[in-house]
Amino acid sequence: MTTAVRSVRVDLAERSYSIRIGSGILALAGPAIVRATAARHAVIVTVPGVGRRYGATLTKSLRDAGVRVDRISVPDGDASKNLEQVKRLYGALLRFGADRQTVLVALGGGMVGDLGGFAAASYLRGIQFVQVPTTLLAMVDSSIGGKVGVNLAQGKNLVGAFHQPRLVWADTDTLRSLPKRQRACGFAEAFKKAAIWDARYFARIERDAERLLELDGPLIPVIAGACRIKAEVVRRDEREGGLRMLLNFGHTLGHAVETLTGYGKVLHGEAVAIGMVAAGERSEAMGFAPPGTAERLRALAARFGLPTELPLFPRSAYISALRVDKKMKDTRIQYVVLRGIGSATTARLTPAEIAPLSRSRGVSRRTGRRRSGAK
Amino acid sequence: MTTAVRSVRVDLAERSYSIRIGSGILALAGPAIVRATAARHAVIVTVPGVGRRYGATLTKSLRDAGVRVDRISVPDGDASKNLEQVKRLYGALLRFGADRQTVLVALGGGMVGDLGGFAAASYLRGIQFVQVPTTLLAMVDSSIGGKVGVNLAQGKNLVGAFHQPRLVWADTDTLRSLPKRQRACGFAEAFKKAAIWDARYFARIERDAERLLELDGPLIPVIAGACRIKAEVVRRDEREGGLRMLLNFGHTLGHAVETLTGYGKVLHGEAVAIGMVAAGERSEAMGFAPPGTAERLRALAARFGLPTELPLFPRSAYISALRVDKKMKDTRIQYVVLRGIGSATTARLTPAEIAPLSRSRGVSRRTGRRRSGAK
Repeated sequence: MTTAVRSVRVDLAERSYSIRIGSGILALAGPAIVRATAARHAVIVTVPGVGRRYGATLTKSLRDAGVRVDRISVPDGDASKNLEQVKRLYGALLRFGADRQTVLVALGGGMVGDLGGFAAASYLRGIQFVQVPTTLLAMVDSSIGGKVGVNLAQGKNLVGAFHQPRLVWADTDTLRSLPKRQRACGFAEAFKKAAIWDARYFARIERDAERLLELDGPLIPVIAGACRIKAEVVRRDEREGGLRMLLNFGHTLGHAVETLTGYGKVLHGEAVAIGMVAAGERSEAMGFAPPGTAERLRALAARFGLPTELPLFPRSAYISALRVDKKMKDTRIQYVVLRGIGSATTARLTPAEIAPLSRSRGVSRRTGRRRSGAK
Repeated sequence: MTTAVRSVRVDLAERSYSIRIGSGILALAGPAIVRATAARHAVIVTVPGVGRRYGATLTKSLRDAGVRVDRISVPDGDASKNLEQVKRLYGALLRFGADRQTVLVALGGGMVGDLGGFAAASYLRGIQFVQVPTTLLAMVDSSIGGKVGVNLAQGKNLVGAFHQPRLVWADTDTLRSLPKRQRACGFAEAFKKAAIWDARYFARIERDAERLLELDGPLIPVIAGACRIKAEVVRRDEREGGLRMLLNFGHTLGHAVETLTGYGKVLHGEAVAIGMVAAGERSEAMGFAPPGTAERLRALAARFGLPTELPLFPRSAYISALRVDKKMKDTRIQYVVLRGIGSATTARLTPAEIAPLSRSRGVSRRTGRRRSGAK
């Protein structure tokens, strides 16, 4: 059942860890987790659906490796990523007798990883944790790099920590149960990384977009490629002092779109796709990127079925939404722009410079270019 | 008004910082905070009484240094060290527009430092913070070393982080308003450090106990001495992998005493004093420490007016209280014992081996020695 397993190393001195990606490897997680953590007690944090599908396999694998296993579910959806659920996890950890030798295993998507990771970061001032991502978005992005946290009523990810996992264990078979729309969101984060870092990797995704969306073609190498870029950026800038900011490409306007539409209607990866196209256009308009850069982003997003147009809200609403962006320094935002596909930098722009000029067409108007021009 | 300022460096590579101790230096905090943090916005977290006494001086000093200042009070007492107050602080930080360039300034005792420090550690995944301790206990212990956190209903300090301050600024004039009982608790933590680390420093405290309790004599050098030991232990073991555990001397039974009496009746430093004497006796009984070691601890504690006898609870109650100790690994506790005044190590003991044998006299019975024997 198992095929070739790809391995990516996140090199952070004593906090280094491996990402393993393969088909059918969930049943092998137990021994790997024991090797990475030396834990004899594991608490699996998951959501009901994922727990029903994969909980038993993971539990058996851990038990066979000599680990005592407890499990707790949190309600599905980003609404669970809050302080109340963290408190519930603390209570469960205490009930299960979790101590500093316990490992918390986050089994699920980004919400479970962020929430479980923050509980692991803060319970007893930090216990070990392992990410077992079951969504593409979590595999290529959120499970790597140690950014964990929860939302407040006032905004997303306002509370959290940098707490690296000991291991990321990604079984691509778990993606079969993922709706296509969710897969597309994962690929948006994958080609975002390509866009800021690696033109050849971008071209590889372009070559196989439709097959990848069907979880066919070079799926495992493409996931590994995204992990490799994230690992490299995190290695050079673990705590987001500078370089790591480039990973926010597409996220500034993306977050504004999520805020304006109400979380959940536009999925995160969809919002990022929209934000990338807009940021690509801005990059061209500012003379950073050659013409056609935004169009390549737009075309690739469209092939994954991702939206590319900013939803219609008044310009003032965009400006307000951008103002609460936590990357804002003084009155400007460190906005990630492309120098072309495969290379990025930041520019300090005001919310007014980032927000779309017109309600009707989004950022395309402000660039003064026709959106569908030939490349 | 200012006298000589003592400075102690906590050497932790890029997380290094200074502790400054002096009389009348609160009014000079502003420029020092700006030098240490480059912040232009500060949020002072304090309790009402401390805020009334010292808030204006600190605020003026910061404003004169060009810093925008906001302030928030939390209710006094250890009961405020909880997740609800942390959430309230997040809300205040958001209202004040705190971003990653903001510094949180904890003005007060250990509760304010732990609570404010944890809010600083987790808000936006970590903002800068500065400790301005106004109790002796905070000056000699809790403000140094980066251990921050809150209590859960199930127990103390179960949630937290390691988040180093950028600066510790200790004005000994603020100790004048501190009740003598609280001062004594501070000296308990000071001579605890002496007991595990530095026999000469222990002798120095013995020489001047009564004068120190009146905030007279070599107060500033004695505070600096405690800071120096803590800084050295933290430097060698920032995240409590081993050595730092020695700082728990007296705390294992101390925590049990706090649990059994209900928090607040016996003050933390008092509980630690009791725990130290008991641990000293155990150290002698196990042959680690020479006879008379416990008696020196007891005598010094008594001169500060600190209790030294374990309160009367059934042995089974002590065992239960010890079982929830978070330093318990498997079924044993890493118990800190002395090899003599000035040197410590750990022994792995069961709760039953640590708990007092008899209700009536506490641990003195189990050692088989007469408590008040000549040294």
